[in-house]
Amino acid sequence: MTHIYNFSAGPAVLPREVLEQARDELVDWHASGMSVMEMSHRGKEFTQIAAEAEADLRELMAIPANYKVLFLQGGAHSQFSMVPMNLLRANKTVADYINTGIWSQKAIDEARRYCTVNVAASSADRQFTYAPPSSQWQLSHDAAYVHFTSNETIGGVEIFETPDTGDVPLVCDMSSHILSRPVDVSKYGVIYAGAQKNIGPAGLTIVIVRDDLIGETIAGTPTMFDYKIHVDNGSMYNTPPTYAIYIAGLVFKLLKAKGGLAAMEVSNIAKSSLLYDYLDSSAFYNSPIAIENRSRMNVPFTLKDAALDDTFLKQAQEHGLLQLKGHKLVGGMRASIYNAMPIEGVQALIAFMHEFERKYA
Amino acid sequence: MTHIYNFSAGPAVLPREVLEQARDELVDWHASGMSVMEMSHRGKEFTQIAAEAEADLRELMAIPANYKVLFLQGGAHSQFSMVPMNLLRANKTVADYINTGIWSQKAIDEARRYCTVNVAASSADRQFTYAPPSSQWQLSHDAAYVHFTSNETIGGVEIFETPDTGDVPLVCDMSSHILSRPVDVSKYGVIYAGAQKNIGPAGLTIVIVRDDLIGETIAGTPTMFDYKIHVDNGSMYNTPPTYAIYIAGLVFKLLKAKGGLAAMEVSNIAKSSLLYDYLDSSAFYNSPIAIENRSRMNVPFTLKDAALDDTFLKQAQEHGLLQLKGHKLVGGMRASIYNAMPIEGVQALIAFMHEFERKYA
Repeated sequence: MTHIYNFSAGPAVLPREVLEQARDELVDWHASGMSVMEMSHRGKEFTQIAAEAEADLRELMAIPANYKVLFLQGGAHSQFSMVPMNLLRANKTVADYINTGIWSQKAIDEARRYCTVNVAASSADRQFTYAPPSSQWQLSHDAAYVHFTSNETIGGVEIFETPDTGDVPLVCDMSSHILSRPVDVSKYGVIYAGAQKNIGPAGLTIVIVRDDLIGETIAGTPTMFDYKIHVDNGSMYNTPPTYAIYIAGLVFKLLKAKGGLAAMEVSNIAKSSLLYDYLDSSAFYNSPIAIENRSRMNVPFTLKDAALDDTFLKQAQEHGLLQLKGHKLVGGMRASIYNAMPIEGVQALIAFMHEFERKYA
Repeated sequence: MTHIYNFSAGPAVLPREVLEQARDELVDWHASGMSVMEMSHRGKEFTQIAAEAEADLRELMAIPANYKVLFLQGGAHSQFSMVPMNLLRANKTVADYINTGIWSQKAIDEARRYCTVNVAASSADRQFTYAPPSSQWQLSHDAAYVHFTSNETIGGVEIFETPDTGDVPLVCDMSSHILSRPVDVSKYGVIYAGAQKNIGPAGLTIVIVRDDLIGETIAGTPTMFDYKIHVDNGSMYNTPPTYAIYIAGLVFKLLKAKGGLAAMEVSNIAKSSLLYDYLDSSAFYNSPIAIENRSRMNVPFTLKDAALDDTFLKQAQEHGLLQLKGHKLVGGMRASIYNAMPIEGVQALIAFMHEFERKYA
């Protein structure tokens, strides 16, 4: 059978080693007589699994001691509300947002329910095919925080710089590139990420929040949307998504064994460069994204003749190359090549694209 | 090795057949080349898995067509906010709550953030060891809804009647007995349940809501807490907890094959009667719960001499009988015997208890 490569934008490909270990341990974890799914979240087995997952994530991302790590539910969408609900203050009712595409806009729309949003920069002028550099951001004088989306999963636009916002907390939706490269956590107030790209299964959300930002919420905030309640209860105020945390923990251990995020970055640069170089070398395919903001995780591209799109997708599928259709809001193709996509997958994609071009150019 | 029986209150024992199928399909689901964890929630494979899960749940519970079924995140705790946020109305700002224990109280505390709560009945007078019958509930004249907890997981108090609240929507937290017996869904406005007892892994919450209650929210409701947004998007407004939905779907299919909820009820009556009859026959153990409200799912009991508790738990563990410690708020022991606990587990527990009594009485 053809080898399958899954280019889904998320939920996405997971490391084969992790899936095989999860399979081997599924019915009976470490001779406990229980599946991880059957363990009380307060029992000694699972609390150990959760503690190791947090410790490994802290090590991987070099998270400073004055940051809390939360394992929550509800995805980035819930963070779109939780960030303003926890970071607005009586004397700080404006928040700065950078608009680089569909995910930024969702965050902005939700924040507008709770505060005045200042869109400090936007790339709408060029259909969100680039990110305005932070030197051009028109920040407010007294914002509660500055929010940006460091990788637009749908648009394929990645921000590689770490903006300097001085004393104003920097908040970042890192859902689709977290763990793909080192980041300096100390520069951020809040980092959040849905798990279903580089971390593990859908249903888990990681929030990394600096101590001094925890403890105040606006009126009407549901208890479940208060960072403090989760901090005070070690992410076990309510039953956490235990199995997703377990799988994430296996991913963290694998990344450590593979050399950590520096090694991931080398690998991700190699994979994405291979694909972008091929796109640039071809007159048949096109990458619409500004070179300096080309995402290493999500690579959108178009065929010169969009009438061939369906044929391309059908034949790709026959070659075991799955989920290459671009998001319906932008069209075209998108190859998501997260940490767990081996370089062989990118090579197989390029080989197919080359053959397709030869046939249809 | 000793056979393990896991009496955890949740996350809890899952059917062995489901775990084995999940193991066999973990790395490659139905020759798709993907784990279910790796599937796009919008792809044809997973949308089929989710659609079947919903259809099977609808069949199992005989859910009428004018009810929506939602697969959400955030547990019952999130529903404690979502219920008032979605059911209060400009001219209905009072909600009736029945207080039968710790989970009722959590729901009440959260509702108080959003409305006036009328505690229409309470069993605090007898330490929550019974449930006031609905004939004694002092309901408001114009409540937005009436909320009760049909099984108190910690207290072990179950309400078997279906209260008649006339035109006032009846809202029920069924987290810890859903799928254990048939219920007449048409009598309810909203039914909700965390998955981690009878449904599947933690991280999934089922909400069953009547059509006419969907569409209004109070000011400040986060988008993710609006039933309508999830209804309008078929529970895929954001990425759902896909793997938990898949496991729940396997559980639903197994329950159908085993004769549905009527068969589950027969089995649960048999298992719980066996244990309660034993408790009543012994002078060494005690069940503190009123006979008419004894939970078939969570069976709390005490040893006459609490000084023996630690010895009991230690020896139970050595006999492969796990997680029997009562919740710290009530002490004593608790055997949770959900659908997936085989009668052999209850028999093994009783055999051990009998032997322990013989040794220490």
